[in-house]
Amino acid sequence: MSHAEFPASHTPLAAPVQGEPYLLTPGPLTTSRATKEAMLRDWGSWDADFNRVTAEIRQQLLAMAGVADDSYACVPLQGSGTFSVEAALATAIPRDGKALILMNGAYGQRAAKTLDYLGRAHIALDKGDYLPPQPDEVDALLRAHPEVTTVFLVHCETSSGILNPLRELAAVVKAHGKRLIVDAMSSFGAVPLTVDEVPFDVLVSSANKCIEGIPGFGFVIIRRDLLEESAGRAHSLSLDLLEQWRYMERTGQWRFTPPTHSVVAFHAALEQHAAEGGVQGRLARYTRNRDVLVAGMRELGFETLLEDRWLSPIITTFFSPEHPAFEFKRFYDELKARQFVIYPGKLTQAESFRIGCIGQIDEPIVRQLLRAIAESLQAMGVTLEKTAA
Amino acid sequence: MSHAEFPASHTPLAAPVQGEPYLLTPGPLTTSRATKEAMLRDWGSWDADFNRVTAEIRQQLLAMAGVADDSYACVPLQGSGTFSVEAALATAIPRDGKALILMNGAYGQRAAKTLDYLGRAHIALDKGDYLPPQPDEVDALLRAHPEVTTVFLVHCETSSGILNPLRELAAVVKAHGKRLIVDAMSSFGAVPLTVDEVPFDVLVSSANKCIEGIPGFGFVIIRRDLLEESAGRAHSLSLDLLEQWRYMERTGQWRFTPPTHSVVAFHAALEQHAAEGGVQGRLARYTRNRDVLVAGMRELGFETLLEDRWLSPIITTFFSPEHPAFEFKRFYDELKARQFVIYPGKLTQAESFRIGCIGQIDEPIVRQLLRAIAESLQAMGVTLEKTAA
Repeated sequence: MSHAEFPASHTPLAAPVQGEPYLLTPGPLTTSRATKEAMLRDWGSWDADFNRVTAEIRQQLLAMAGVADDSYACVPLQGSGTFSVEAALATAIPRDGKALILMNGAYGQRAAKTLDYLGRAHIALDKGDYLPPQPDEVDALLRAHPEVTTVFLVHCETSSGILNPLRELAAVVKAHGKRLIVDAMSSFGAVPLTVDEVPFDVLVSSANKCIEGIPGFGFVIIRRDLLEESAGRAHSLSLDLLEQWRYMERTGQWRFTPPTHSVVAFHAALEQHAAEGGVQGRLARYTRNRDVLVAGMRELGFETLLEDRWLSPIITTFFSPEHPAFEFKRFYDELKARQFVIYPGKLTQAESFRIGCIGQIDEPIVRQLLRAIAESLQAMGVTLEKTAA
Repeated sequence: MSHAEFPASHTPLAAPVQGEPYLLTPGPLTTSRATKEAMLRDWGSWDADFNRVTAEIRQQLLAMAGVADDSYACVPLQGSGTFSVEAALATAIPRDGKALILMNGAYGQRAAKTLDYLGRAHIALDKGDYLPPQPDEVDALLRAHPEVTTVFLVHCETSSGILNPLRELAAVVKAHGKRLIVDAMSSFGAVPLTVDEVPFDVLVSSANKCIEGIPGFGFVIIRRDLLEESAGRAHSLSLDLLEQWRYMERTGQWRFTPPTHSVVAFHAALEQHAAEGGVQGRLARYTRNRDVLVAGMRELGFETLLEDRWLSPIITTFFSPEHPAFEFKRFYDELKARQFVIYPGKLTQAESFRIGCIGQIDEPIVRQLLRAIAESLQAMGVTLEKTAA
């Protein structure tokens, strides 16, 4: 099957099959037809044809992270992105090391919980639901805790939709000579993140986020010397990143059965990513989606949780309106009946919901969504007034 | 899309798309078009539509294992089958418990290696490359080691293709009051294995074996009281089976992003499995595949590693002929050029290769394979004499 039948970039993007809703979420996403069509054949997981697909993916991901030599390795791992984060934590933090977790949402909290399972020491800077960790706070903490070996940061925390100030924080971590693990799950591929600009040691992301693949695996981009020194650190056979890498380097194969169809779909998705102009092209589309979404939602009377400068181009949190007739479940169902699936909120202190800007979504689809939201409010008998930015 | 367009059972089975080889391996397999077509849409992993798919899969797997009440739970888990085995071992073996691993190939060895990672005590009955563990040997070992809490057995060890004497071994384990973990990875769905006939405590299998799904997840069928008593045993957040189960019971969702497309493909594969007559129907087709294969290969001059009574209907190991012109790599390439992918051997002591009987393969395809093998031998200049059974 030729991918040429399914152009990677077109406006408006192809609608899903009849009755299938758009997924306006942080993943799994609405993916292209070409990406899904790539799954219409079966692959031997040890065969040379499949090994070539794996090798190309690894090489392309390293290039996307700005790696031009063999100082970093790319190690894909079966499972959800959380499996890759757990493997990265177990690999990068020595058993007698100590982590500083920068928390402002569910994914920072999950990293801390993972370290509890691993029995590895950690402290946290907990900013609550949505405030960004500040470089001077991190600087002060690292001064007070020189025993910290590794800092963990979520780039885009989808709990709130905030894009954390990665570059400034990375500079502080580097100045202290500490190691930095970036959970770039929902940002990599759409927000520029390269080794020359952000001195990270480990980066983790997954197939079904901004590269617009199918769920099934994640990947870790890790400084090779750090990976090589990690022998004996893994707590789990399945999640042993060093052994996964060694096996892949030696044989070209995944150590255990890979999610073959998800891998070939990702390969197709990477081709479309490049055709759209790579990270910059995708950033432009997602940013436009977000800008149209936020402006349209404010026009309808909704308020964003975050100030404009912290809004990511990935997902946006809106407060649920205080109107007595607004009920999230009903709102969700009204929108789903209009072919749009949105995402519940995750704030502890306020009623909210989230709308994603990633996946095969573009401006005409966002405008269609805004009309569906207006109709849904009307159907629910909810009247709002336009809000200020 | 209606599955009615793609009949689940037809002879001859549909050929793969042009140029795509048949995968005669222990998985990933050649799957049906209907199974792959199920992946042509995207699913929100928290949406009610997807939750229903997950619930139906769990219920159908329990029914396949002969579970009629709530004494067992079915817990699917992201990753390859090995991830599920690791999770099952961590859940079912107390931290101060001791396992007896019945080994006759790579998968028994892998279980022991997993327990090394987990730091849990174990002993082994190691039968080498292909001999079956005997009930009296296991009985003697359990008498000598009353501290053993749990016995682990691979049902079909695909290293050699042997079908181990599960029923007899399970009876011995039960007589000693020990717990039994059955790795039924490559047998479940095609070899009858129900709680009333085999008193297992834990059974592990995966999506891409005899149920003929797509790789991406495995599943554990476990006695519910054993699962519930396992709190605090897990060594890993991602592989914590109890938490996965609790979350699924509470919300209907997977705890972390599921491999959505693999899950819906599996749902379609289960529908086809039922349409083929369930476990008995599949066993009949695979058994016929094996019988035609083994007879045809002997006709061509090949010898099986195992005596007939140990041959599984899953995969068969053949000795590489001693003819000087026979070279496995060349044989593999000749067969691949003829649209068949076979599997290398895994014996430590003898040159061998393996041919699988599972997946969307039936008698006409096996006969086509036998012709391709005859042609390949001729192309290589290998002449053999017919062997005895």
